[in-house]
Amino acid sequence: MLAPVLTLTTDFGATEYVAQMKGAILSVHPEARIVDVSHEVQPQNVLEGAYVMAATVPYFPKGTVHVGVVDPGVGTVRRGLAIQCRRGWLVGPDNGLLWPAAEALGLEQVRALEDRRFFRKTVSATFHGRDVFAPVAAHLAVDGPDAFGALGSVVDDAIRLRLGEGAAWEGSLVRGVVLHVDRFGNVVTNVPADMVERWGVGSEAAVEIAQKPHRMRRVSTYGDGGPDEPVLLISSSGFLEVAMNEENAARRLGVRPGLPVAVHFTDGSP
Amino acid sequence: MLAPVLTLTTDFGATEYVAQMKGAILSVHPEARIVDVSHEVQPQNVLEGAYVMAATVPYFPKGTVHVGVVDPGVGTVRRGLAIQCRRGWLVGPDNGLLWPAAEALGLEQVRALEDRRFFRKTVSATFHGRDVFAPVAAHLAVDGPDAFGALGSVVDDAIRLRLGEGAAWEGSLVRGVVLHVDRFGNVVTNVPADMVERWGVGSEAAVEIAQKPHRMRRVSTYGDGGPDEPVLLISSSGFLEVAMNEENAARRLGVRPGLPVAVHFTDGSP
Amino acid sequence: MLAPVLTLTTDFGATEYVAQMKGAILSVHPEARIVDVSHEVQPQNVLEGAYVMAATVPYFPKGTVHVGVVDPGVGTVRRGLAIQCRRGWLVGPDNGLLWPAAEALGLEQVRALEDRRFFRKTVSATFHGRDVFAPVAAHLAVDGPDAFGALGSVVDDAIRLRLGEGAAWEGSLVRGVVLHVDRFGNVVTNVPADMVERWGVGSEAAVEIAQKPHRMRRVSTYGDGGPDEPVLLISSSGFLEVAMNEENAARRLGVRPGLPVAVHFTDGSP
Repeated sequence: MLAPVLTLTTDFGATEYVAQMKGAILSVHPEARIVDVSHEVQPQNVLEGAYVMAATVPYFPKGTVHVGVVDPGVGTVRRGLAIQCRRGWLVGPDNGLLWPAAEALGLEQVRALEDRRFFRKTVSATFHGRDVFAPVAAHLAVDGPDAFGALGSVVDDAIRLRLGEGAAWEGSLVRGVVLHVDRFGNVVTNVPADMVERWGVGSEAAVEIAQKPHRMRRVSTYGDGGPDEPVLLISSSGFLEVAMNEENAARRLGVRPGLPVAVHFTDGSP
Repeated sequence: MLAPVLTLTTDFGATEYVAQMKGAILSVHPEARIVDVSHEVQPQNVLEGAYVMAATVPYFPKGTVHVGVVDPGVGTVRRGLAIQCRRGWLVGPDNGLLWPAAEALGLEQVRALEDRRFFRKTVSATFHGRDVFAPVAAHLAVDGPDAFGALGSVVDDAIRLRLGEGAAWEGSLVRGVVLHVDRFGNVVTNVPADMVERWGVGSEAAVEIAQKPHRMRRVSTYGDGGPDEPVLLISSSGFLEVAMNEENAARRLGVRPGLPVAVHFTDGSP
Repeated sequence: MLAPVLTLTTDFGATEYVAQMKGAILSVHPEARIVDVSHEVQPQNVLEGAYVMAATVPYFPKGTVHVGVVDPGVGTVRRGLAIQCRRGWLVGPDNGLLWPAAEALGLEQVRALEDRRFFRKTVSATFHGRDVFAPVAAHLAVDGPDAFGALGSVVDDAIRLRLGEGAAWEGSLVRGVVLHVDRFGNVVTNVPADMVERWGVGSEAAVEIAQKPHRMRRVSTYGDGGPDEPVLLISSSGFLEVAMNEENAARRLGVRPGLPVAVHFTDGSP
């Protein structure tokens, strides 16, 4: 039978910590195939990690096991979780990191990681990614539902986090925050596409970001922007995005993850 | 039968975009084995991407499918291409990116990516890497020539790009450009080894780079350079290279990809 | 039979050089499964590379082949080595890089890489990682002890390097150096846990690092540190570490790999 796929999303950078997790997975399940999602999440930025996982897990085959480790609370009392979804499994800390991905995959049941038979023999106080989450994920990849039922008790009070929950109408303004800045300097906000879908390509908006006002056109593709022109478009993951054609918009506009953004479309009212 | 290998070369950085491509590949072909070539190509630098692919693909087994995505024209009318070569397959945009690698692998036939059965169901305007090139590559990995013939019409006007085409004699000078700066600060130019082969180890040259003159010896290995001495050697990929022993030559000399370089060997004339 | 695992540790960055090594491995042994340990070792810092390998290889399954390439002497007369250990194999240059990992895996025998049948046909002067170490490792992954015995003669004078050898008592001070700074800015020293084990959680120490004095508490987990408080703990790899809760200690304290550190525990004497 085909070896299952496991994915890893962390804030570890491309470091030996990631490799230790892979070793821990392969030690439980030598046939596991492991794919890196990203290890460049801003250190300890749970919201950005949640965005990256939610944007990525839907592209993987059914049954994939997704591990997330952005875990400022490691070594404290925060629980570890495994989540069974219609289209895959998730493993990581109970801090909201897994929640948007779980909803994207069709959340079915959440369990706490309690049974130490599924952990490494020695559990370090500082590295549950390697000693708890990696081996649990490997067991899920081998035994699926059987392993899941044995991990620990069902949880109904997991910490919930919604990427779009900070985005809201305030009069005729949409207010949100920056979720993520990608390699090209494209700025992904937490404003879901459906909040702004009535303003099609060609609409104009007044945008305040990094405490400065801009006028931006809604376009359909990066190449539609003129030289030095910041534009609005819907990102490939379904959120409103600010970008510049062949330029790094985040650097030019002074934008980092976490900053607020306000958008007012001027042709038509909400 | 053994799972085929696919490689990825992009300017995405180590980000979730790469992982989405891997998910798209595994969704078509769950047994695919995926190897990252580089995701650190300078954003939208097609020439550097072409260099990196051409320098790397010859080391992979026959039949490997190589995907390249450095794609400033995504979402515009530029075509997508698949190229059948004697020693493998290439998939990516029609902007020259694939051409040097195709020549290195023995180019046989080029086809346009037209038949949408080989794409993801929804094709985003901004991310053909995931929605077009990745699934096409997965189909090539499964079905090889059968898939290739069905992708679209044969193309004979693909954009050609040659790494060495900017390198030329001007009197007794060789003029070229910087293709690539590697992690160690070694500076790879686009001057092919055979243009300078008559000047063996021990020859001396006057070199102008980053608008400053230097005298450099031609050596055979990095360790042959003295302290603080920039030297010339032939890189492992067959181009003239400027390097410093245990130093970052690019930083010390102020060199970036794209800058011009001029070399005049002073012992013997061309 | 299951494809063996090979790991790679280099100072190449995430570049095409790594991919060329992977291609060279897959060309010898198409079923090889390759895992990146780290390519972010400080360029030519053999000690840091040795630390990263030793900290990581114990987490991989028995029989894994580990390749290390931090190789300032490439192209000179330094030998290449393969090391047979109870729990795996190591391949790389004879400069101490492999030694701590070999001890961690149970060193059995060291051989020089001499028989060119195990190399690529053309061996570049500047890239033994691809042309010597990668193909040798692939042969070890296929044929294990049979390949090992044929590689070359037994070596008993390999360069030995011990991570903790620079750490020593000087009166009531422990003196050591910084081995490694991780992504979070945690500072790993070369002081082994057992040198300081008598000072448990709650002990206090005077610490001099980057030429400045600090008072630090010994804690058990990152979360135990107060705001802006540098603390001492035992890293997950068994060395004394300086860290700050949700802060980058290396940046705040001005620390880089290679700097000296001195620790004087003030509650109790050695």
